[in-house]
Amino acid sequence: MRVITHWATRDVRFPTSKKLDGSDAMNPDPDYSAACVSFGAEDGPLGHSSVFTIGRGNDVQVAALEALRPYVLGRDLDELLADMSALYLELTGDSQLRWLGPEKGVMHMAIGAVVNALWDIKAKEAHKPLWELLSDMDPEELAGLIDYRYISTALDRNRVAAVFRSQQESRAERKDRLRNEGYPAYTTSPGWLGYSDDKLVRLTREAMEEGFTRIKLKVGANKDDDVRRLTLARETCGEGFPIAVDANQRWEVDEAIDWISALSPMGLDWVEEPTSPDDVNGHAAIQKAVAPTRVSTGEHMANRVVARQLLESGAVSVLQIDSARVAGVNENLAILALAHHFGVPVFPHAGGVGLCEAVQHLAFFDYVALSGSKDDRAIEYVDHLHEHFVDPVEVRAGRYWPTDVPGSSQEMVPESMNYFAFPDGGEWASA
Amino acid sequence: MRVITHWATRDVRFPTSKKLDGSDAMNPDPDYSAACVSFGAEDGPLGHSSVFTIGRGNDVQVAALEALRPYVLGRDLDELLADMSALYLELTGDSQLRWLGPEKGVMHMAIGAVVNALWDIKAKEAHKPLWELLSDMDPEELAGLIDYRYISTALDRNRVAAVFRSQQESRAERKDRLRNEGYPAYTTSPGWLGYSDDKLVRLTREAMEEGFTRIKLKVGANKDDDVRRLTLARETCGEGFPIAVDANQRWEVDEAIDWISALSPMGLDWVEEPTSPDDVNGHAAIQKAVAPTRVSTGEHMANRVVARQLLESGAVSVLQIDSARVAGVNENLAILALAHHFGVPVFPHAGGVGLCEAVQHLAFFDYVALSGSKDDRAIEYVDHLHEHFVDPVEVRAGRYWPTDVPGSSQEMVPESMNYFAFPDGGEWASA
Repeated sequence: MRVITHWATRDVRFPTSKKLDGSDAMNPDPDYSAACVSFGAEDGPLGHSSVFTIGRGNDVQVAALEALRPYVLGRDLDELLADMSALYLELTGDSQLRWLGPEKGVMHMAIGAVVNALWDIKAKEAHKPLWELLSDMDPEELAGLIDYRYISTALDRNRVAAVFRSQQESRAERKDRLRNEGYPAYTTSPGWLGYSDDKLVRLTREAMEEGFTRIKLKVGANKDDDVRRLTLARETCGEGFPIAVDANQRWEVDEAIDWISALSPMGLDWVEEPTSPDDVNGHAAIQKAVAPTRVSTGEHMANRVVARQLLESGAVSVLQIDSARVAGVNENLAILALAHHFGVPVFPHAGGVGLCEAVQHLAFFDYVALSGSKDDRAIEYVDHLHEHFVDPVEVRAGRYWPTDVPGSSQEMVPESMNYFAFPDGGEWASA
Repeated sequence: MRVITHWATRDVRFPTSKKLDGSDAMNPDPDYSAACVSFGAEDGPLGHSSVFTIGRGNDVQVAALEALRPYVLGRDLDELLADMSALYLELTGDSQLRWLGPEKGVMHMAIGAVVNALWDIKAKEAHKPLWELLSDMDPEELAGLIDYRYISTALDRNRVAAVFRSQQESRAERKDRLRNEGYPAYTTSPGWLGYSDDKLVRLTREAMEEGFTRIKLKVGANKDDDVRRLTLARETCGEGFPIAVDANQRWEVDEAIDWISALSPMGLDWVEEPTSPDDVNGHAAIQKAVAPTRVSTGEHMANRVVARQLLESGAVSVLQIDSARVAGVNENLAILALAHHFGVPVFPHAGGVGLCEAVQHLAFFDYVALSGSKDDRAIEYVDHLHEHFVDPVEVRAGRYWPTDVPGSSQEMVPESMNYFAFPDGGEWASA
């Protein structure tokens, strides 16, 4: 038995609104932020994790993390590590906390971060990166990490275990390929709404020169602008180069169908977040109307229950997952298993603060142990804020290269945490 | 111009878990709580409101309210009162806060409370109870209070204004009838899961003697127990007396269909929250399978987007609204308008701390100015904690009787707020 004696939270905010990095039709001036948590026992590694937010309200997210302190501090770490679904089930099932969602919003994201920090410890003590820890797990154990509640019409434990078993023999081969070939990345860096046309073209060209084989542009603020920007990008990339667009929930259903019809002649890899992330029926109507253009959503998908509905009703042809939106690794395993069951490819949402670092582990795991495929799949990549992480992602030649550092790559550089601490760090105290 | 100079929040918790009041299949030991907010200008009335929670996490809800302080303190109260959708749109549309939902969970409920507190001031300054303030409003103005974003496939402003206009001439007559006849109530008091069979029968009999014409029992923990308890209630009430049941999200879809089939021979008015409140498709499957037994949900319905889907897909035949779950009066107007559009009766969720006091205003307004009907409608009533409110609900002869006190009946008695303040009030400091 080892007692968890350390617990700390931090409110860390980067002043990204100064440069319009990360600007889109819904989020004009984000200050990319992280509500950070770390905990651990004496003489053992600390588990690190965070919830990504875009500025105001990051303090509320920290308060939600603090509400979980009594569930963690003083607990037997070894007991928690021995059953990696126990803490997840305890926190998502806590009747009083559950009232605050249920399974959505600030409280759910806080639970996700705490669950992820425990996974960070688990991986560090196994001396493996998280993706490899998961990829090496027994199929029955993996299937047991998933909460089938409210998704049992689609998945059950036996069926999921069978899927993991079917990929077990070939895991080693895919692990080698992952290390030798990397995993496809796509970049959103050229396409933020705040950028000029010249900057868009220059960054698109640079993205292709760097080896990216897909890019994504933000759309949804002005249709004429979007047509012009997409035309410029298409001229720069050439025919057949996959270009996705992301409307960040800006449209009504009918508006989405009109707008997508105006953009689709330029060729769209997928259209992301056309409308409210809660609107399963709306996405289904849009997907039906604009097919074969693919509709996607997921970065604001509240939980596995919404994922199941989006997938079973054919509302999306591409799914995003987000490492910090749902209840941690466990719920993301459920969502990956659902996507596999319904035959929908996953293009993880990333960018933000530490999202690339976190979600890569899930995508690598999916390739090695679940879907077995890198075809028509790629992890989003945005080239900023990585310098603040102890184990930043390695993206070269348009690919993510798997880390071998034990853990989940979520630890932030202490100097960065101190300088960007809100409101007392150097960056903000001087503002 | 009057500047808002007062702002206060409080964490108030009642130790209801001691008596198992409020116990159900999902919530075995709630401590009914309120995250309270009040604000106002000098020499004017304070606006009061709160978010209901069931204990742990009430501090997180208070933190979310505090995150809204800079949006309210120092603002021109008269400007906010002049356009009662402005603050609602500003807060729900704030891009940085929106990331924490969007439009769901802790942050969304905090926005609802702040919007409701502004409505409290509006009603007080009009010297009218909130229900009457709303009922007297111009149809165009009422229609303008609704945010049609993400519900435009069902509703638009012109259509909603036309509905309000069609009821305008007969408003006065219904106002008189409301004051003379009251509004139907139903009670959940007999049916909490923690109660013995004897207590259930005794409280059921008392409810009928008090004039209630509907009751609701909690179910979902044990099927045999539910059959026995429902049989006892049916024997006590007699044939034809409406008895609803509430599973508080405990079931999977298939399980719900089985369980409801076992209970339906005893006669069910409706079955509430059979499964996850996010599961539109699941409710639709259950409703189809168990018809003509009616399925309902709503107390945990995150927002108007989910409401629209539940209604348009025939997933519910009865809808609950909750005064403290969504973004205040404005979003509840949208949900009431949606229910009316789809012809589904609303049975508001109440109980909790101040939910009866708050939601009565919406039901009265719906009768006077929107649906025009009290048939097959009733407001939930639970007889506890009303003594802590300055203007408690008046429920006699199984009916709510409309208050004439200006405001929204949300102000708590100061002595109660102090004694039950968490963790420093007398109740908790001594625990």
